[in-house]
Amino acid sequence: MFDEMWGAIERLGRDGRTGGYLRDAWSPVDLELREWFRQEAARRGLDVRQDRNGNLWAWWGDPSARPGVVTGSHLDSVRQGGAFDGPLGVVSAFAALDALTAKGFEPGRPLGIACFTDEEGARFGVPCMGSRLLTGALDPDRARGLTDDEGDSMAEALRRAGHDPAALGRDPETLGHIGAFVELHVEQGRGLVHAGVPVGVASAIWPHGRWRFDFRGQANHAGTTRLADRDDPMLPFARTVLRARELAERAGAVATFGKLRVSPGNANAVPGLVSAWLDARGGDEAAVRALVAELGAFSGAEVSTESWTPVVDFDAVLRDRLAAVVGTALDHRAAAPVLETGAGHDAGILAAAGVPSAMVFVRNPTGISHSPEEHAEASDCHLGVTALAAVLEDLCRS
Amino acid sequence: MFDEMWGAIERLGRDGRTGGYLRDAWSPVDLELREWFRQEAARRGLDVRQDRNGNLWAWWGDPSARPGVVTGSHLDSVRQGGAFDGPLGVVSAFAALDALTAKGFEPGRPLGIACFTDEEGARFGVPCMGSRLLTGALDPDRARGLTDDEGDSMAEALRRAGHDPAALGRDPETLGHIGAFVELHVEQGRGLVHAGVPVGVASAIWPHGRWRFDFRGQANHAGTTRLADRDDPMLPFARTVLRARELAERAGAVATFGKLRVSPGNANAVPGLVSAWLDARGGDEAAVRALVAELGAFSGAEVSTESWTPVVDFDAVLRDRLAAVVGTALDHRAAAPVLETGAGHDAGILAAAGVPSAMVFVRNPTGISHSPEEHAEASDCHLGVTALAAVLEDLCRS
Repeated sequence: MFDEMWGAIERLGRDGRTGGYLRDAWSPVDLELREWFRQEAARRGLDVRQDRNGNLWAWWGDPSARPGVVTGSHLDSVRQGGAFDGPLGVVSAFAALDALTAKGFEPGRPLGIACFTDEEGARFGVPCMGSRLLTGALDPDRARGLTDDEGDSMAEALRRAGHDPAALGRDPETLGHIGAFVELHVEQGRGLVHAGVPVGVASAIWPHGRWRFDFRGQANHAGTTRLADRDDPMLPFARTVLRARELAERAGAVATFGKLRVSPGNANAVPGLVSAWLDARGGDEAAVRALVAELGAFSGAEVSTESWTPVVDFDAVLRDRLAAVVGTALDHRAAAPVLETGAGHDAGILAAAGVPSAMVFVRNPTGISHSPEEHAEASDCHLGVTALAAVLEDLCRS
Repeated sequence: MFDEMWGAIERLGRDGRTGGYLRDAWSPVDLELREWFRQEAARRGLDVRQDRNGNLWAWWGDPSARPGVVTGSHLDSVRQGGAFDGPLGVVSAFAALDALTAKGFEPGRPLGIACFTDEEGARFGVPCMGSRLLTGALDPDRARGLTDDEGDSMAEALRRAGHDPAALGRDPETLGHIGAFVELHVEQGRGLVHAGVPVGVASAIWPHGRWRFDFRGQANHAGTTRLADRDDPMLPFARTVLRARELAERAGAVATFGKLRVSPGNANAVPGLVSAWLDARGGDEAAVRALVAELGAFSGAEVSTESWTPVVDFDAVLRDRLAAVVGTALDHRAAAPVLETGAGHDAGILAAAGVPSAMVFVRNPTGISHSPEEHAEASDCHLGVTALAAVLEDLCRS
């Protein structure tokens, strides 16, 4: 079941030249993936709903009567990302439900599968868009006004995709349906490789954020403008890249400039504007904030915060229960290992909003993620489904 | 006449938000501009031809009988460029011809107006594409294989625009029609401002070239990949930007990184590849070559040459004749000033191929070019037309 589903979506949004995925939120391929989700849900007789913010929910049982147990993840990707980040959690959710059905299990409370919208923020710059809007962590006016590389606002993109942008915003009713949330995800590091086991559980998500640095200069001709007459923003940008690395080393954090827009972007023109996105994370919230403040002052750029997520400690009781159940389900001698991560997830947004949330990680042999080389072995994915089914069975019993 | 023509094309390809122009070669707006050129030529009873490489020629008289005098420029733009770079030369050409017709002048030899294709190289990376192919300075197989940001090859783009890519290549017949070439252009510097006159003449074009630097690393997750485990190509790129400036200062040259491609280009991913285009120019050819060699070794990147144009000294006899005619036409007390430039032009490519060529510059108050702020006063543009008409009258007499 897992393999058939995986095979059905594997080619969608795949760049044949690189093997990487291009699954921007609300793009035609995203709509195709959402339609696939609806069909998988319908095939199982689940009740599919799209909420005000475009998140999809497939329910077994009625969560308006009693909050349910929800699992799932997202189907959008970073640009040139891997196949697993997101889809593994959604496909595993359906497969776990099938495993439970096959053994005749009847849940004691509603069981839901979620597909969150725009988790990566590849198109509009803000990650976990769907869960942030749902929980009220992001202002809907700000979301509607975000623009993509073509200059299209999110409001326009939603309208084109048939979704009413006026509907965006905090959605207490939908949020109230979630009694607990469990997100299965490919690990984005080598913690499980070191532990020598295929499946683990998350303890915490590092505080992390994204800032836009706008370096302004004067666009001009690259051949005729003397060095002394230039105001070339590429120079302060370059100094800021090197400084970010030094500051991150000092703070025991990570800092990355992975996205850039150079305007006008001609080989024969001195740029007039370099916009660069800083991603910074670390175990110590104050240290990350201090790094960004010092770098901003050093850079001379206009700095705006695109997102900031404080540290998320997952519910300790739920985490320990999951670790025990996963350990038993996979015949480990002990509970599954518990790992912290530097990656943001919808589960973190829900946890910050007070929803008991947890994450299950599946081993990643190289630890590489957000790259075409991201990988998980099929056998480990199958064990992930087994673990997730055991977790859902346990949580739905009570 | 000048003002009407200017008004007719001023809005084409203009980005309303920035005031900059987006006139990529073979794009829909480029095709619209080419159609405008054909109509202006037809309205004057000129014979319009498109050559094998897509350059347009409007002839008064038959150049196959005797090589003619040609003037003109190009209609494509750099991205977010100004209104004048290119179109000023084409519009002035038609206006100068009108001025000659109005006074009853009959040319003693064929008179042609040229519109060169893809002068800026904004789309496929190689500037002066039309004149390089015409003169055999660029291999047509290489041209056909160049790709734009969407991954479309030039061959595909040509086919879509209705031009046969198999036709590209050296074209001695068309080249043989050009007895002399005069390109009028907005100045890309403040030489004429300093001289206090509206119109000047070019002496030489600096040797200049464009190189692509590919910095390769390992794409990975920006949150979960420890600094020590990273291979982030943004760091050597940043060091190379700063080094380029130092080397250019030392060499008395200019060096610019104005175009970048970061892959995958996600805010939350360490890049796997940073491709950066170096533009380097200077008065001393050996110094420019040494700069690029030293920078390439320093960078650790794979460096490929996209274009290289040695120094171009315009025909001295033609240059002095133009300077005298322009000076007289504009009632200067002396000949028009003679200036060297760091900017490449189709006139330079033709000169290097042995065609007697010259350039007329029109004053630019700020010297800014390749930017929406590029400007020339209408009164100076009109004086440019007067000067060009005088030059054509002089050259067509003999």
